[in-house]
Amino acid sequence: MRTEICERLGIEFPLFAFTHCRDVAAAVSNAGGLGVLGAVGFSAEELEVELAWLDAHVHGVYGVDLVIPSKYEGQGMDGLTPQELEAELAQLVPQGHRDFAEKLLTEHGVPQLPDGEHHSELLGWTATTAAPQLAAILRHPKAKLVANALGTPPPDVVAQVQDSGRLIGALCGSVKHALNHKAAGLDFVVCQGTEGGGHCGEVSSLVLWPQVVDAVGEVPVLAAGGIANGRQVAAALAMGAQGAWTGSLWLTVEEANVPPAQMRTYLDATSHDTVRSRSWTGKPCRMLRNEWTDAWERADTPDPLPMPLQMMVALDGVKRGHRYPEAAKDVNFNPVGQVVGLLNRVERSAEVVARLVEEYVAACDRLGKLNG
Amino acid sequence: MRTEICERLGIEFPLFAFTHCRDVAAAVSNAGGLGVLGAVGFSAEELEVELAWLDAHVHGVYGVDLVIPSKYEGQGMDGLTPQELEAELAQLVPQGHRDFAEKLLTEHGVPQLPDGEHHSELLGWTATTAAPQLAAILRHPKAKLVANALGTPPPDVVAQVQDSGRLIGALCGSVKHALNHKAAGLDFVVCQGTEGGGHCGEVSSLVLWPQVVDAVGEVPVLAAGGIANGRQVAAALAMGAQGAWTGSLWLTVEEANVPPAQMRTYLDATSHDTVRSRSWTGKPCRMLRNEWTDAWERADTPDPLPMPLQMMVALDGVKRGHRYPEAAKDVNFNPVGQVVGLLNRVERSAEVVARLVEEYVAACDRLGKLNG
Repeated sequence: MRTEICERLGIEFPLFAFTHCRDVAAAVSNAGGLGVLGAVGFSAEELEVELAWLDAHVHGVYGVDLVIPSKYEGQGMDGLTPQELEAELAQLVPQGHRDFAEKLLTEHGVPQLPDGEHHSELLGWTATTAAPQLAAILRHPKAKLVANALGTPPPDVVAQVQDSGRLIGALCGSVKHALNHKAAGLDFVVCQGTEGGGHCGEVSSLVLWPQVVDAVGEVPVLAAGGIANGRQVAAALAMGAQGAWTGSLWLTVEEANVPPAQMRTYLDATSHDTVRSRSWTGKPCRMLRNEWTDAWERADTPDPLPMPLQMMVALDGVKRGHRYPEAAKDVNFNPVGQVVGLLNRVERSAEVVARLVEEYVAACDRLGKLNG
Repeated sequence: MRTEICERLGIEFPLFAFTHCRDVAAAVSNAGGLGVLGAVGFSAEELEVELAWLDAHVHGVYGVDLVIPSKYEGQGMDGLTPQELEAELAQLVPQGHRDFAEKLLTEHGVPQLPDGEHHSELLGWTATTAAPQLAAILRHPKAKLVANALGTPPPDVVAQVQDSGRLIGALCGSVKHALNHKAAGLDFVVCQGTEGGGHCGEVSSLVLWPQVVDAVGEVPVLAAGGIANGRQVAAALAMGAQGAWTGSLWLTVEEANVPPAQMRTYLDATSHDTVRSRSWTGKPCRMLRNEWTDAWERADTPDPLPMPLQMMVALDGVKRGHRYPEAAKDVNFNPVGQVVGLLNRVERSAEVVARLVEEYVAACDRLGKLNG
């Protein structure tokens, strides 16, 4: 299963693991795949710590995923510091939205964060706040791959990454976005179907992947959305992808820093339990449906705000849900794809990599036998 | 690509073509696949004519698809003739729904059907009205396969089909439905992802197929939803399916009895242009989004009725749309899956079968080379 992008990165298997947990990222890289750390939840200082840890624990290389949305509120407010931008944007958030979010959490008995535990509401969700994250990445030589989660990255970001000898790519949910990525000179595109966890479009992986493969020509396509076993990896490579980009799969591994109560929620869920909702980030994002997502859908409740304003409303809920997952179980943020129905037991990350490879080989063998 | 179900049916390729057009069904069967005629739009007498034509034109065998919903209004009204059942059900249709449908068609300038062109409003959408269709099928020896589109068929239907030496199967959109089919002793299940045209569930093919394959064990699974080229066929077989069940693909072939204006609509559409809507049949059904589907979604308009009542409201629109496709272009019933974005030119049915086989072989070769 060694594809061209494996050669360029010096990895054994084209299995890319998006995760917010450095332990998972390291375990996957060390098992022959490529761990990709999601940076959005970290300040630049925190990210620096994570990357230093990865440098010390990864034998080969790893990747980092940024979030620079191609469209968001506050775009073009140039020359502001992250703190100034956050203050400007905070004025655009209606108090009614904050009150509604607080009411939901209070009604469900989700405690407040301890006094003094403050945090930025904006995080890395803008070009301004992602810039110092990128600077951190460029200081870490094993961070060999950068992906942008929400649209084509700005030209200066592309240039900085490529000039440093790294690969840069971006996610897409349509042929149009993929062509934008190609026009910007990206090194690869991650093409994600609607069944994928997190931000996603409306077209399914099976329908979208071959269209994007054909549209971008020689640009490597990594297939995302709906992959949790090696049969699905075989499907992706048969359709012309150069690798598999997975995310949900790593929420239920032994190393994941997902609280046990939340991991149980994932393990118990079926493929019918997810919904695309704007209620946490402001853009359609696939997650488990629960009382929070339902509450923001009703006709008599506030409509979710555009990105990043909705996350400024919801981030307190994310933090409280992470700290008090038992209390927050019906109103927690549980981003995951439809493959959640295939996640039924806890495995070690290295076991998952080995299993994907074995299942892939078995699927290829099945095809081989069919064809005599 | 010869699988076990090919052996049982005596066909060359496990390529199943669902179509409402006998010419397409015959062409696919004669090209080595299996044409499956959708029966729901025909009276039993009309179906008899179609099947006699197929017997005369198909060299080997073909299939027929019935619609016996597992749940519908009027279920259990036993002992009524189809005419009596239709009269009973007609009383359950609010006049406001009929008026709203008529207003939509009138506003868009869709002419009335010519005087005297009357038709049943109920068609084959119930066990009562499907029974004489089944009787017709059983008189035609080349009709070797029967599929039920909406749930597990009743035990007497299963017994009649199997006792006559035919295979019977049914579509499913969830593991639960697949297990019901297995428990009823069906010979195969057609597992359709949400991207598929017509009635579909919410889970994507890539996620659903492997779950159903694992759940039903030795029962052959035909993969449906999202297949329009041979790469997707390879993906389906790699994931453990015994064949590919396709539908949308046959709307834009040369032989299809789709009016040219409607075929143009399909050829021009992208994968982003479909919607799951209850506005025509009463159950979620994937089709092109247009002014009809939007109109039934609005808060101030009637909600679609349950099956088969909504179809009793909408059938006049279906018939008028088929007769006056130019006038009806913004309010026509255009059932199709997300693969509509891959349907960009008119081909002959036999060319499509040959292309699927070639693309399948190329995809398998790609995998073979990757694996050394």
